[in-house]
Amino acid sequence: MAAPYTPPSETARAALIAAIRFDDRGLVPAITQDAATREVLMLAWMNREAVAETLTTGRACYFSRSRGALWRKGERSGQTQALVDLRVDCDGDTVLLLVHQHGVACHTGRRSCFFTAIRDGAVATILAPQADPATLYGGRDA
Amino acid sequence: MAAPYTPPSETARAALIAAIRFDDRGLVPAITQDAATREVLMLAWMNREAVAETLTTGRACYFSRSRGALWRKGERSGQTQALVDLRVDCDGDTVLLLVHQHGVACHTGRRSCFFTAIRDGAVATILAPQADPATLYGGRDA
Repeated sequence: MAAPYTPPSETARAALIAAIRFDDRGLVPAITQDAATREVLMLAWMNREAVAETLTTGRACYFSRSRGALWRKGERSGQTQALVDLRVDCDGDTVLLLVHQHGVACHTGRRSCFFTAIRDGAVATILAPQADPATLYGGRDA
Repeated sequence: MAAPYTPPSETARAALIAAIRFDDRGLVPAITQDAATREVLMLAWMNREAVAETLTTGRACYFSRSRGALWRKGERSGQTQALVDLRVDCDGDTVLLLVHQHGVACHTGRRSCFFTAIRDGAVATILAPQADPATLYGGRDA
């Protein structure tokens, strides 16, 4: 079992956020990786508030560009992501979340969003759904 | 040793590129992951031409937003990336490259760009350089 999440101090949290260069929309791309399998699960976007909430609560919170609001991953679908580590890249314009994924990351019911690639000379779907998308409340923001 | 790269047919290549939704600048974020260690190495951007060249040559080619030109990874530094797989996400707005990284991915000489995180209550550098940045010709586009 994963250890309970211990939030960083307010000082450390502020220092990490200060290392992030949010773009002119106030957003930064966030790559999310399964901490156990190392599979890349998805890419979403975060604003300053989403990063702060994620670090404070230990649950991944993004910013939905389509809804223009915080997107607490799994709030409706139950497919939450427990934060293990949040890393910032060398020039501060991307973050990497390592998480324990409860259930599946993708709204299609697949564990990862990256399931389209070339196989045997044609574009193919390389992952099967592990959950019924209809039960995940539909929509990207599941 | 990795198998020699076999490029997809022009038809398959075009079909995969057709699944990508480039943004209003003609770009898509590209996550690059080490195919062997599964470490996330970097995030860069690609335009249509960069995706096509990467699939054709089997060597990662990005689009440098700062230079406004194709960025053939490792052209100057020798730190090339041999393509293993190029995957597109569920809504077509991100790609994932699995690569064999020759040397290090980051211009700081670290194997990954994601080396800043909170440790022991403070922001810390969690990866040591494995190569001398001065020998990598400096600059992000090494």
